[in-house]
Amino acid sequence: MLYLFPTPLSDNPWQESIPLEAVEVVKACNLFVVENLKTSRRFLRSMISDFDIDGSTFIELNEHTPDEEYIEIVQTIKDRNTVMLSEAGLPGIADPGGELVALCHDWDIPVKPITGPSSIVMALISSGLNGQQFTFHGYLPVDKRERQVFIKQMVRNIRETGYTQIFIETPYRNTVLFEDILHHAPVELRLCVAIDITGKNECIKTRSIGSWKSTSKPSMHKIPAVFCLGA
Amino acid sequence: MLYLFPTPLSDNPWQESIPLEAVEVVKACNLFVVENLKTSRRFLRSMISDFDIDGSTFIELNEHTPDEEYIEIVQTIKDRNTVMLSEAGLPGIADPGGELVALCHDWDIPVKPITGPSSIVMALISSGLNGQQFTFHGYLPVDKRERQVFIKQMVRNIRETGYTQIFIETPYRNTVLFEDILHHAPVELRLCVAIDITGKNECIKTRSIGSWKSTSKPSMHKIPAVFCLGA
Repeated sequence: MLYLFPTPLSDNPWQESIPLEAVEVVKACNLFVVENLKTSRRFLRSMISDFDIDGSTFIELNEHTPDEEYIEIVQTIKDRNTVMLSEAGLPGIADPGGELVALCHDWDIPVKPITGPSSIVMALISSGLNGQQFTFHGYLPVDKRERQVFIKQMVRNIRETGYTQIFIETPYRNTVLFEDILHHAPVELRLCVAIDITGKNECIKTRSIGSWKSTSKPSMHKIPAVFCLGA
Repeated sequence: MLYLFPTPLSDNPWQESIPLEAVEVVKACNLFVVENLKTSRRFLRSMISDFDIDGSTFIELNEHTPDEEYIEIVQTIKDRNTVMLSEAGLPGIADPGGELVALCHDWDIPVKPITGPSSIVMALISSGLNGQQFTFHGYLPVDKRERQVFIKQMVRNIRETGYTQIFIETPYRNTVLFEDILHHAPVELRLCVAIDITGKNECIKTRSIGSWKSTSKPSMHKIPAVFCLGA
């Protein structure tokens, strides 16, 4: 069994983000597939004060993992209960864990998700925009021209289908992206900016593009944020 | 402040789905906006054994709520800490709560999401399909012809963009939908069926359409399921 285990989105206590019973899953496992060794061990120790690091096996899986190692990892976890951890939030959304999960299905290794914080969904439900139908685009193009084309395509999607458009940016470029949207999206559409979800500086606001243009902008430079654009 | 509070997806103990610290939010509130009065009270009592029902105010908000009542509700919650509950999972995804959240933004009432189970995201991360880019369609059309057109459009989306296509169906029609997808999607695409997520009969399997056609199908009749289709 491969457990997909969440980690907190911000540096708040795990008790605010992870169900108490989920800790029992970790206690029953001694094999861990992690994106980063150091932060994962720190997280496990914060959750279980007497966590047995020396008696546990850690496998690092991240963007540096060569393709051929995936099969080795699958063979290792095949008959053992394994916990997969990502750096923030749920594993498998925006990290290389997804490929391992796909292999687990090929090998008939059961996969079990554990409840945890998803910044995408938490932004969406807090936005008040259409939550019945939506598209998540991940990172928008960095190139200014390509990004402009992309924003205009999202606006067309909203007008034709009503689907909420969700996207993210590398935190230090958040402010530039925000200005780009205000520039290229029509004034009547609504934009939600969900900043530092679950964190100390959490700020989630939905305004029309027109209204954003004439009010003060929330501080989002170098802070993780999720953007939702909708009708 | 309007807290968007989760409920379990299945009838398992809340400790498996909701962070311990979230309970403190409920303890500090005595105003609740709920989809169903009876089940919400039962849930709150299961979480807090001495929950003060008589000292709490409950407002029902569901598909029967007339438009003009929304403003009354906003006026009531404006200066009070309020907890919003849906019937299963996170509020605001597939229920009328989203409209109230939108009004809260108009009235500058802060909205705060609490971590809880999202069947859409839990299915996606467990599917091994593209988790970086995806579209959630909600319910597919019921009409057989329209549904066929819709499935073919999703197949085109996958081929052109690589986005994972996620959708749901009323549980008693799950088996028919499953057969429709096997019939209309090309054999090389992969289909994940995530049945009874977090429940006793949880079963999450990803297979190619071709492989699904030649293997036994998991039982999904009248059981909540999420479907993910991808490359």
